[in-house]
Amino acid sequence: MIYVIGIGPGGEESITPRALNAMKSCEIIAGYTKYINLVRDLLPGKGFISYSMRHEILRCHDALMISRDFNIDIALISSGDSGVYGMAGLMLETAKNSGEKIIIIPGMTAANSAAAVLGAPLMNDYVNISLSDLLTSWEVITKRLIAACTGDFVICLYNPASNNRPEHFKRACKILLEYKSPDTPAGFVMNSDRINEYHEIMTLGEIQDCKLINMSCLVIIGNSQSYILDGQIITPRGYKL
Amino acid sequence: MIYVIGIGPGGEESITPRALNAMKSCEIIAGYTKYINLVRDLLPGKGFISYSMRHEILRCHDALMISRDFNIDIALISSGDSGVYGMAGLMLETAKNSGEKIIIIPGMTAANSAAAVLGAPLMNDYVNISLSDLLTSWEVITKRLIAACTGDFVICLYNPASNNRPEHFKRACKILLEYKSPDTPAGFVMNSDRINEYHEIMTLGEIQDCKLINMSCLVIIGNSQSYILDGQIITPRGYKL
Repeated sequence: MIYVIGIGPGGEESITPRALNAMKSCEIIAGYTKYINLVRDLLPGKGFISYSMRHEILRCHDALMISRDFNIDIALISSGDSGVYGMAGLMLETAKNSGEKIIIIPGMTAANSAAAVLGAPLMNDYVNISLSDLLTSWEVITKRLIAACTGDFVICLYNPASNNRPEHFKRACKILLEYKSPDTPAGFVMNSDRINEYHEIMTLGEIQDCKLINMSCLVIIGNSQSYILDGQIITPRGYKL
Repeated sequence: MIYVIGIGPGGEESITPRALNAMKSCEIIAGYTKYINLVRDLLPGKGFISYSMRHEILRCHDALMISRDFNIDIALISSGDSGVYGMAGLMLETAKNSGEKIIIIPGMTAANSAAAVLGAPLMNDYVNISLSDLLTSWEVITKRLIAACTGDFVICLYNPASNNRPEHFKRACKILLEYKSPDTPAGFVMNSDRINEYHEIMTLGEIQDCKLINMSCLVIIGNSQSYILDGQIITPRGYKL
């Protein structure tokens, strides 16, 4: 049996009992090194397989082999939700026609964790967009950024920048600024729910030049109704107070 | 002190330790009756305040009074994530200028819970839209449905239908069908992560006439790349298998 598990944003206290119990029921826990290190101490006596970045397809093939050929239960873990930019889809596709039982256990994704740090920015309709163009073309990303503006959604940006594409985030902000006011509240959380968590709140006009945005950040940009109250971003739900 | 807590989709095993510990640290737990009943047995010896539907503003005023005037720690709970169509924003707005300390503890929201039941539909960029027009006009909802289509987002529909507005869901589907193929994979989960959980997977063309869609359902409609594999919805992330 293969469990594809989201361990949540990173903190031990954010792992659901369901995810923890599923990991405890397995002999082997596999995943990206950084995520394995987040759970290793909680799972004494387990075998761990730590992968470097990428190699997602290999991880799924290994899991299938371990479960099917050796009859060993294995947990394939992702941070956040295994079903949001995680391993769930790839694992199901890899196991196609194998008859292997795959159980997907969701977790809290970064947008929700970061939102609570920034206040209450996601109280109304919102989108999650990844700025990584490894798997999605920049044309599609651009189309989605524009659609997010025309729908006046709150926007959560995953993978906002990396060393290989430091200019992506600024390019994305320039697109948003064609449609949204530079005064729109914006914020980021770095290492949300982990050691060295750090956040800042500013405006869309300001955040485009923020040098701190990297792969460990989740960025949230408000809708036209969002405002800053006592250092927190609030998107009103629509109640008449 | 006021904690605004998301208890997750409903299952006891989906409540994070952080949320449970925060509830245990409070003397009083307040919220909609249905959600109070989900946690009552986990919290012996606590005081509970159960509210009927609506009364969200009253709940926040009560919490503020209890914490400020009586110096009693109180947990205001929502199902799912307190920051997604929950109580977080309203509580912050109600406590404005009060100096009261408010701590927001996020939870797993229904979209992530339901997605895992349906397969892996949220592996690429997605939107959350509520079809309730109590607080958002139908014009704005329509605009967002159209924008979600033009951006080719996977679409999660919260509050898809209620007794007061049985036709909303069908109206929404008709809008989506102007832009998306009727063959687009679609599914719903009723009572996700609760007793009597039930789900079905079909197409957008079919789901518009599904009589089972109600307030206890979360609906997910795929993007142009989504497909059905072994009875599950998969939205490819873009890996070349």
